[in-house]
Amino acid sequence: MTATQIESHSLSAIALSTRDAARQLAVVSTEAKNKAIEAIAQSLEAQAEEILAANAADCKAAEAEGIAKPLYNRLKLDATKLKSAIAGVRDVGKLPDPVGAVQIHRELDTGLVLQRVTCPLGVLGVIFEARPDAAIQISLLAIKSGNGVILKGGKEAVRSCEAIVKAIHHGLSQTEINPAVVQLLTTREETMALLQLDEYVDLIIPRGSNSFVRFVQENTRIPVLGHADGICHAYIDKAADIAKAVEITVDAKTHYPAACNAIETLLVHQYIAPEFLPLVARALQERQVELRGDDRTRKIIDVAAATEADWTTEYSDLILAIKVVDSLDEAIAHINTYGSRHTEAIVTEDPTTAKTFLAQVDAAGVYHNCSTRFADGFRYGFGAEVGISTHKLPPRGPVGLEGLVTYKYQLTGDGHIAATYTGMNAKSFTHKDL
Amino acid sequence: MTATQIESHSLSAIALSTRDAARQLAVVSTEAKNKAIEAIAQSLEAQAEEILAANAADCKAAEAEGIAKPLYNRLKLDATKLKSAIAGVRDVGKLPDPVGAVQIHRELDTGLVLQRVTCPLGVLGVIFEARPDAAIQISLLAIKSGNGVILKGGKEAVRSCEAIVKAIHHGLSQTEINPAVVQLLTTREETMALLQLDEYVDLIIPRGSNSFVRFVQENTRIPVLGHADGICHAYIDKAADIAKAVEITVDAKTHYPAACNAIETLLVHQYIAPEFLPLVARALQERQVELRGDDRTRKIIDVAAATEADWTTEYSDLILAIKVVDSLDEAIAHINTYGSRHTEAIVTEDPTTAKTFLAQVDAAGVYHNCSTRFADGFRYGFGAEVGISTHKLPPRGPVGLEGLVTYKYQLTGDGHIAATYTGMNAKSFTHKDL
Repeated sequence: MTATQIESHSLSAIALSTRDAARQLAVVSTEAKNKAIEAIAQSLEAQAEEILAANAADCKAAEAEGIAKPLYNRLKLDATKLKSAIAGVRDVGKLPDPVGAVQIHRELDTGLVLQRVTCPLGVLGVIFEARPDAAIQISLLAIKSGNGVILKGGKEAVRSCEAIVKAIHHGLSQTEINPAVVQLLTTREETMALLQLDEYVDLIIPRGSNSFVRFVQENTRIPVLGHADGICHAYIDKAADIAKAVEITVDAKTHYPAACNAIETLLVHQYIAPEFLPLVARALQERQVELRGDDRTRKIIDVAAATEADWTTEYSDLILAIKVVDSLDEAIAHINTYGSRHTEAIVTEDPTTAKTFLAQVDAAGVYHNCSTRFADGFRYGFGAEVGISTHKLPPRGPVGLEGLVTYKYQLTGDGHIAATYTGMNAKSFTHKDL
Repeated sequence: MTATQIESHSLSAIALSTRDAARQLAVVSTEAKNKAIEAIAQSLEAQAEEILAANAADCKAAEAEGIAKPLYNRLKLDATKLKSAIAGVRDVGKLPDPVGAVQIHRELDTGLVLQRVTCPLGVLGVIFEARPDAAIQISLLAIKSGNGVILKGGKEAVRSCEAIVKAIHHGLSQTEINPAVVQLLTTREETMALLQLDEYVDLIIPRGSNSFVRFVQENTRIPVLGHADGICHAYIDKAADIAKAVEITVDAKTHYPAACNAIETLLVHQYIAPEFLPLVARALQERQVELRGDDRTRKIIDVAAATEADWTTEYSDLILAIKVVDSLDEAIAHINTYGSRHTEAIVTEDPTTAKTFLAQVDAAGVYHNCSTRFADGFRYGFGAEVGISTHKLPPRGPVGLEGLVTYKYQLTGDGHIAATYTGMNAKSFTHKDL
C-alpha cells in the first residue's frame, strides 16, 4: 500500500467505529443526551487550564510562523472565550431535540399505520480552519442531533483541538454515549481521504473561506452543507422611503462587511437615483466605504467606474458597486443573473412591487424593508446555526439543528401484503391522517 | 464551434427560455394552474388520434429494429392507456398545490416578520426511457408544482413524445402559462449536454433502469432524484408469526419481482429457521421462485448455494437469497452492510425487537409485519410519485409533489437594521411564533 492508501485505510477504520457508535447514539433518549452534554460542559470546565495551555502553545507556534493577524485572532482562545463556548454547550442542551419528531401519522388501512419520523443523518464530517471553539460547538450540535462527527481542524489549532476532544471524550466516558462518536483528524492528508469516504460520512460541513468551501464542494460526492459565495444586493425602488433606504444600505454594507450576508451591489431605480444617491454616498463615505458606479451612477455622484467584474465579486470589505436600473424587472434580472442565491433585499413602500420582488427573486432569503444582515440562524430563532445553504433543495438558508437530521418512514402492520390492494377485488386504502 | 459546442449552445438557449417561463409560472395562482391542467387534458383528448398514430409509427419502427418485448410494451400507447393517462392529468389537477405553504411564521421583533414559504425549484430535467405516457405525467406534475421541465425521452418514443408535447403546448397556448415551460429534447447528444446545465436546471429526474440511473448520477453535478439500486430484505425474527412471515415473504418477492421494493434477500433467525424455511420454500417454489441459501439454510432445505455476490445483487426477478442469522443484531448488521437503504422489513410479534429494528436499520422505509411492496407514493397517500429516493438527506423514500418544491425565507420589516440588535444597547429579539 502507498502512504495515501494506508491513510485512507486507517481512516476507514476510524469512520467505521464512528458510524457504529453513532448508530447506538441514534436511539439514546433526549434526557440521556442532555446529561451527556452537561457532563461535557463540566469536563471542559475541569480541563480548562490544559485547554488554554494547549492553545497558548498553538498560538506561540503560529506566531513563530508569522500567522496573519485575523487568523491569529480566530485561533486565540482566552478564558473568557472558553467560558462563553462552555455556556454555548449548555445552550445546546436546552435546544429542542430534533430527533423523533413525527411529521406524518397516517392510517393506510385498518391496522396499517405509517409514520414519518425524524432521525439522525449518521456521521458528519466537519472541516474547519483555525477556530478551536468551532470544534466544541459542532461536536455538541452533532451529539444533540444523534450524529457521530469526524472533526478535521486546521493544523494551527492541532494542540487546542486535541485538548478539547480529550475533554469531550472524558465527559462522554462517564455517560452511556460511546466517546467514539467524536473523532479528531489532525493531518492535511486526512482531509482529502475524508472527502472520499462517502460510504461512511453522510454530510460534510466546511467552515472557512470561500475558496476553501469551493475546494471541498469540488472534491467530494458527499452532500456539502454551506455555500461558497455571498453576493447579496439591495434594490432601492422608485417608491422607497429614502431615510429607510439609506439606513438599510449602510447597515447591510458596513455592519460587518466580511459576513456573507453583507451586500456587495446596490441597485437603484432611475427615478429615485438623483435624490437617493448623493445621500447614500455621503453616509457610506463617512464610514470609509469605497464606491464604484456604472455610467448612470457616475452622472449623479463622483465615484470610480464599476466594470462587469464588480457585479460578480464578493468584496467582503468596505467596497460597494452601484448600478442604476430602469425598472423592477431589470433589478430582478440583475439579481437572478449575478446573485449567489443567498439573501436579497428590496426597499419600497409599494406592497405590490415588494410582493413581485419576493416572489420572483431566486434566493434563500428575500427581504422587504430590512437589512440583509438578518440572514442568520440565531436571528431567525433557530438557537444554533450549522451553516447557511444557498442550494436550491432544502435545507436552504440558515440551517439549525434540523439540518442535521433526516427522516424515515415507519410502517407497522399485522401481516398486511400488497396483493390485497391490487387486482380485481382490490381493497381500497383509507388514507386517514391520525 | 464543434458540433457538441453548438448543441450545448442551443440547449442553453432552450434552458434559458424554460427558466424565464418557469419564473413567471412560479407566481401563477393555483386556480390558473388547474385551469391550464384542464386545458391540457382537453387538448390531449382532441389530439388523441394524432398521438396514437405517432405512437403506432414509433412502434412500427421499433419492431423493425427488433426492440425487446418489455421495452415494446412500455412504448406501446393504445386508446385505453392514453385515456388513463389523461385521467391522470385531471388527478394532478385535484392534488393540493405544494407551492405557497407557510412552514414558519414568526415575529423576530415588532414589525419584523419572518415567513418560510414553499416555492418551485425552477427547472426540472427529466430523462426517461421508452414510456411516452411518462412525458404526460411528469409535465403535469411540473406545472402543478410551478416548475419548468425539459423532457428527454428515449429515441424509440420520439414521434409519440413530439405529438404529446405538441398537444400540451396547444393546451397551454390557451392559458396564461407560457408553453415554453415544457420543452422536449430528442437527440442522444442532448442528454449529456442537459446533465452539464447546472446553471439552468435545478433537479434531474431519471426514469429507467438501474444502470441508466447510475450513469446519470455519475455524470452530473445537478441533484438527482431517485435511486439506482433496490436491495431490500425481510428479516424473520425468532418471535415471528409463521403464517404472517410466509405471506409477507411471498408477497414481497413475487407480487412484482421487477419492482425496486421487492425483496432480494431473506434473513431468518436460527431458532425459527427449522420450522419456517421448509414452509416458505414450498410456498415460493410453487410460484417458481429460485432459492439460493447459505450453508445453514442448506442444512434445512435443499437449495442452491448462495455466494457473497448474492447479498449485493438486485435480481429484479423470481430469485431469492436466504441467510440464517444468529441474532437480531446480525440481521441489522447484514442489512446495514448490504442494503441499498430503500425498504427493510421485520416480521416479529415482539414489540421491543420491532422497535430496535425500526430504530437501527438505516433505510428510507423500515417496516414491521407488512410487505416491503407498500413503499410507494400512491400507497402512502401522496397522490403522485415523482420517484423513490434512497439518499440520506430529504426528500427520502417515495417522493410526491413536495419533492418538486423548495422554500425561501421572506423577511418583512419597516426599516429594521441589524445594528439595533448588537453591541452595548442591543435590543432583544422577541422570536414569537405567529
